[in-house]
Amino acid sequence: MPPDNVQLRAGKRNASANFRALSIREPRAIMLAMTSTTVSAKGPFAGTPEFEKNLDRLAEVAVRAGLGLAPGQELVMTATLDSAPLARLIIEHAYKAGASLVTTLFSDEQSALLRFRYAPDPSFDAAPAWLYEGMAQAYRNGAARLAITGNNPSLLSKEDPEKVSRLNRATSKAYRPALELITRHEINWTIIACATPEWAAAVFPDLPQDEALARLWTAIFAASRADQPDPLAAWKKHDAHLHARADMLNQKRYSALHFRGPGTDLRVGLADDHLWLGGGTTAGNGRYCIPNMPTEEVFTTPHKDRVDGRVTSTKPLSHQGTMIEEISVRFDAG
Amino acid sequence: MPPDNVQLRAGKRNASANFRALSIREPRAIMLAMTSTTVSAKGPFAGTPEFEKNLDRLAEVAVRAGLGLAPGQELVMTATLDSAPLARLIIEHAYKAGASLVTTLFSDEQSALLRFRYAPDPSFDAAPAWLYEGMAQAYRNGAARLAITGNNPSLLSKEDPEKVSRLNRATSKAYRPALELITRHEINWTIIACATPEWAAAVFPDLPQDEALARLWTAIFAASRADQPDPLAAWKKHDAHLHARADMLNQKRYSALHFRGPGTDLRVGLADDHLWLGGGTTAGNGRYCIPNMPTEEVFTTPHKDRVDGRVTSTKPLSHQGTMIEEISVRFDAG
Repeated sequence: MPPDNVQLRAGKRNASANFRALSIREPRAIMLAMTSTTVSAKGPFAGTPEFEKNLDRLAEVAVRAGLGLAPGQELVMTATLDSAPLARLIIEHAYKAGASLVTTLFSDEQSALLRFRYAPDPSFDAAPAWLYEGMAQAYRNGAARLAITGNNPSLLSKEDPEKVSRLNRATSKAYRPALELITRHEINWTIIACATPEWAAAVFPDLPQDEALARLWTAIFAASRADQPDPLAAWKKHDAHLHARADMLNQKRYSALHFRGPGTDLRVGLADDHLWLGGGTTAGNGRYCIPNMPTEEVFTTPHKDRVDGRVTSTKPLSHQGTMIEEISVRFDAG
Repeated sequence: MPPDNVQLRAGKRNASANFRALSIREPRAIMLAMTSTTVSAKGPFAGTPEFEKNLDRLAEVAVRAGLGLAPGQELVMTATLDSAPLARLIIEHAYKAGASLVTTLFSDEQSALLRFRYAPDPSFDAAPAWLYEGMAQAYRNGAARLAITGNNPSLLSKEDPEKVSRLNRATSKAYRPALELITRHEINWTIIACATPEWAAAVFPDLPQDEALARLWTAIFAASRADQPDPLAAWKKHDAHLHARADMLNQKRYSALHFRGPGTDLRVGLADDHLWLGGGTTAGNGRYCIPNMPTEEVFTTPHKDRVDGRVTSTKPLSHQGTMIEEISVRFDAG
């Protein structure tokens, strides 16, 4: 049964489509919704030695722990224009780890907005299938995949939601062959975060911009273990911990989970043969990777007919350039 | 007969290969040698209203006169990171002209340098064939092609020339299928220039950086007719003039050209059925485009056995990231 009540402050029309799409873990980094409103000498990058060290460690841990890049392996990276300094550090660490070739596809939020402002109507059903097919070809030939995310979470909030929806559909369709190689874990891949002023302002609305940005970076470094003395060892330990947690939950064989909180009283029945997963995984190409960095997640499969009650999101959700607030959904027998 | 004497101050080893490659008119904008050493709020862009107007006109004339973009046509653009403000204006004018989709592939000189600094040796025989094949696929499906050039003309001068040469070979081979669609004029395409601080410093070495950059922009705007009250009309007139000049030379049926100058005394016999060309051309897809912007060129075919004498370049040449100075070549019966 679909959700019966989705309250949105923006992007109202395609609300249920938005909600159902949330389970996709691969961000469409190249497609849309990337930040570039503040191209400055350092962009969203402060210049203290401590910051530089953390940023370098973030890049190294992304390549070595997140991606598990093999010597001689090709890397396809997507990045926002504003994340170029971080992208360059990743390029450095990828080549140091033996990459044969690193190709970076930069995206630009301002360019995305220009499309909404000036493109003729049929443009919103178009997508660069040739580029996505090229990426899929690179994966089939052995390339790894790294995405740097970080955007303006409200980039498309003022755009026509029908055009946003059509563009997302066209892009999803064109991107599917490449995305399937990712979601089926046929190759090693990971996603890391780059702070942006707009994201920082959404998270810390009461702080001055510089301070908000610094706070967001601090949070990213902490969650990504880039601020640890030995981030690779920290990730090894954390990954083992996530696997131990999943193992413990698998031994418990719970029949249902009961969530309670503000606006939430939800009983989620679990599938009969459900399996808990979390942390790193060995991809089809044999490389061990940790697909999201940071990750604290262990996850499993609900029973399709046994979800009952109401769940309310206490935080806003940025989905494909639109901020969705006060999401509240009631489920009745699934 | 190959050149017998090529004097170089840099990039000595592959000198004759460099020289022979000069006739390729499509820059490898995405491949190498792009500038990004000065990512600043405006990058290489000054902010006066006059400048903004000229930059906007440059973008418009590139799309409408250079590219001859068709309504509903897709556009594949390559641009340097630092040229993002110009790229965005081109995106705007392309969508205003009815483009169905504009995809920009940004390149980054600093990333190119990181490869030379950190990549393992086999990397210099690698190229992203999947990306070039994707571009070729876009062209076959009807896309137009615009390149923004503008780089550090000495970017690779300090790198191992053997690696530079191998990388150029690998890239050329992977790029050939896409390039052939360009060189055979099967699609409409054009190239425009974006000033960079390094390029400006090479052209105006005695001026302060800001002034050198402003002077280079002024030269680009003038040569591109972007500083004219009606740049589109100016290009129409200029294009007619180039064709008239080619027609006049075709009527003359000269058997040879004799060049004299400092260090130059060269007699170039022309092929028996030579044809003079210049200005715009109708591409295989039916679109009329002016492939280089600016262009003052009319050109023809020399006789392979009838070139005699010495030619000396009075200006340095930047070729694939290396500055070549004092080029002097003697020909003997071709």
